[in-house]
Amino acid sequence: MSAHPRLSLNQATIKYAPFDEALRLTAGAGYESIGLWREPVADVGLAEAARRLNDSGLRISSLCRGGFFTLPEGPERRAAIDENRRAIEETRVLAAAGADGSAAVLVLVAGGIPAGTTDLAGSRERVRDAIGELAAEARAAGVTLAIEPLHPMYASDRAVVSTLDQALDIALQFGPEVGVVVDTFHIWWDPQVFAAIERAGAAGRIASYQVCDWATPLPADVLLARHYPGDGVIDFSALTRAVDATGYAGDIEVEIFNETIWDDAWPTVVARTASSFADVVAPHLSVLTT
Amino acid sequence: MSAHPRLSLNQATIKYAPFDEALRLTAGAGYESIGLWREPVADVGLAEAARRLNDSGLRISSLCRGGFFTLPEGPERRAAIDENRRAIEETRVLAAAGADGSAAVLVLVAGGIPAGTTDLAGSRERVRDAIGELAAEARAAGVTLAIEPLHPMYASDRAVVSTLDQALDIALQFGPEVGVVVDTFHIWWDPQVFAAIERAGAAGRIASYQVCDWATPLPADVLLARHYPGDGVIDFSALTRAVDATGYAGDIEVEIFNETIWDDAWPTVVARTASSFADVVAPHLSVLTT
Repeated sequence: MSAHPRLSLNQATIKYAPFDEALRLTAGAGYESIGLWREPVADVGLAEAARRLNDSGLRISSLCRGGFFTLPEGPERRAAIDENRRAIEETRVLAAAGADGSAAVLVLVAGGIPAGTTDLAGSRERVRDAIGELAAEARAAGVTLAIEPLHPMYASDRAVVSTLDQALDIALQFGPEVGVVVDTFHIWWDPQVFAAIERAGAAGRIASYQVCDWATPLPADVLLARHYPGDGVIDFSALTRAVDATGYAGDIEVEIFNETIWDDAWPTVVARTASSFADVVAPHLSVLTT
Repeated sequence: MSAHPRLSLNQATIKYAPFDEALRLTAGAGYESIGLWREPVADVGLAEAARRLNDSGLRISSLCRGGFFTLPEGPERRAAIDENRRAIEETRVLAAAGADGSAAVLVLVAGGIPAGTTDLAGSRERVRDAIGELAAEARAAGVTLAIEPLHPMYASDRAVVSTLDQALDIALQFGPEVGVVVDTFHIWWDPQVFAAIERAGAAGRIASYQVCDWATPLPADVLLARHYPGDGVIDFSALTRAVDATGYAGDIEVEIFNETIWDDAWPTVVARTASSFADVVAPHLSVLTT
């Protein structure tokens, strides 16, 4: 089997597959790259996970995820910052263990508005401040902190960073150790998205390009509203060409949260992910290898 | 009973109340203004609805709704444009029948991406074009077409106009007969929202200010995710002060789609709407009467 050389399977797309199985299925289907999550890595232990990743021959395209930076000062905020320090180190170790071309990219989800408050403005300031605390450490580790703007329907409880421009405005307050994630699911609706992609690319801050689709009606749990590329309303041609035009040449992850897809047979999901990518994303890439 | 002199009850907040009952409850609770919907008006007939509105002594703050402009050229698009012509005329008649200070404002919901396509860009162009077809007619009727940006979670199936800046960019291609709706539920998350409100106000294009709250988790049907002001995460102080600072002195509608609230006793809902407005919106208004 084969898959596009720039395609990476985000591990969450086969969420219930054990760590080893995820590596085996991904490599077996001809993928060259995988996006990992901290929890399954922790389940096998960082050193062991790094060894198995190395054995798999796969690149790592990103580690999900750090962030959750919106709490006011206090022990919980300190614990969150410390957790991110560990995530930076994990990213460094895994990227060193992955095949050549691995990306030391830690995806950051900002966090929501603290419960019982309406402090959106303060929450956004605290995200910037937390990244400020971590940037030097990331730089020293050779890790890129990749701020992922999430769809505004998650602004209340998950991510107060809602647009690519907003993520980039934060990133540009720091050096190249802070970048942004361009995830089609989160930003496709944004009237400013093409200008924002161009700006992020020109600044050299696109740390990751992730693709999955949006379909309606939304499921009861809006966290699980993602689909295979091509199964929804997103114009992958326009968005992929825009990212491609910036010169972004890294891996492209497919990350799907969808209960039906999670319940499907893992080899089916891995194959379907590769074919949907080949159909609607790959034709718009001018750079074929990482 | 009394209610704030600028508070208007959008009829959809007591969706299941018959037309007469909605007028009676609203006026009886001390409101001076109501926002009407086309369907209940059609149920009693336009002329009769206008007579009853006049009898009630209430102002009308807006008529919901026109729009649904995203289909490509063809009979369905022509039917949608014609439907909006009728809506303009209804707005004119009702505003003339309402008490002094009534607003001849027709709320426009853009419409979603045509089924089976990914044509977001074309859909947005067709919204602008449709408004271009209707603007002269609206001007002649003394009606303001009020483009309502809807939350991006509705961009796929309901409204391809997703931000206040985007709505304003369309409105500014026309004269003052085209304005925008500032609805807290739809725009609270937008990092650019305060600049956009200032810009809309400076251009004299704020045609309506609507308030309701956002809470998580979202219900299974995300159309019904609205709450009384104060029951969610929205900072009504910051948004109301921003609208107030522009000099906007019109009615302020509370429009809530929420099955639990719809199932509650109508007088309870009407009273609770007034008290929540008094608690979290009214304190931030410098202009007390319309």
